[in-house]
Amino acid sequence: MSKDAPFPAPESETASEEGTIFAPRFDQDGLLPVVATSAKTGEVLMLAYMNAEALARTIETGEAHYWSRSRRRLWRKGEESGNAQRVVEMRTDCDQDAIWLIVEAAGAEAACHTGRRSCFYRLVPLGAPLGGVSLRFVDAERQFDPETVYRHSGAAKGTLKNR
Amino acid sequence: MSKDAPFPAPESETASEEGTIFAPRFDQDGLLPVVATSAKTGEVLMLAYMNAEALARTIETGEAHYWSRSRRRLWRKGEESGNAQRVVEMRTDCDQDAIWLIVEAAGAEAACHTGRRSCFYRLVPLGAPLGGVSLRFVDAERQFDPETVYRHSGAAKGTLKNR
Repeated sequence: MSKDAPFPAPESETASEEGTIFAPRFDQDGLLPVVATSAKTGEVLMLAYMNAEALARTIETGEAHYWSRSRRRLWRKGEESGNAQRVVEMRTDCDQDAIWLIVEAAGAEAACHTGRRSCFYRLVPLGAPLGGVSLRFVDAERQFDPETVYRHSGAAKGTLKNR
Repeated sequence: MSKDAPFPAPESETASEEGTIFAPRFDQDGLLPVVATSAKTGEVLMLAYMNAEALARTIETGEAHYWSRSRRRLWRKGEESGNAQRVVEMRTDCDQDAIWLIVEAAGAEAACHTGRRSCFYRLVPLGAPLGGVSLRFVDAERQFDPETVYRHSGAAKGTLKNR
């Protein structure tokens, strides 16, 4: 193990599932999907990705770090918006290819770059004809104004988005 | 839109984030990550993937369908184990490249192919030296015996696993 590869290589499927060695299974891009839920409300706040460095820094510091796929760089959650995430609990899944973080938010309690508490602010109605699925906004109040927080309007359109 | 492509193509970033047209953004493999949480306990049960067909069938039937990456086929959750998932609520995220399902489990209330309620039955301790991260089992009681349910021992080792 080195700074570049701080985790052991994945083991056999049985060892991955029933063992205690943390040997995460990164995908072909070197990433793991990460679900962050709120310690306060339990709701799913966001789905993002970690590379090995983001995972290592999160474990070391207890603060959520991700890999931004759009900006192609390590990203400490809240570094620009102030809405950092303290990790209360981290779990991995059966085959160690996904992470669940339970987090406490600092700042405006807004995980989404659009200013909302959660990125999941729209319902997909069930049973509708597929061609005409119309999303419905729920819990979509903005906790902050992205244009002010990110200081230029590009951010609100996604150039500084949370992934 | 056709049977093969039942959803409209993704729109501009602003329309994706602030609009009501459901135009999911599948990845280069044609998949979306899906977080399933329990309607009863709120916990994260599993992280899986949907292709367009799985997404369409889930919306049409209200029963969770996924794409099994290991078996490379559509998979109705519970088709072998009996542990189906009725979708109580479906949401999409800001850029429409992830899905959150709130589900009610039928059967043994076990979302994981290892027989556990959730796939996330191991903690990753924070602050530990990276080389020696040792997972800790939590909420890891089996709700069913995978060898019995899947009828042959290969299943317990992952050949019929939930992804």
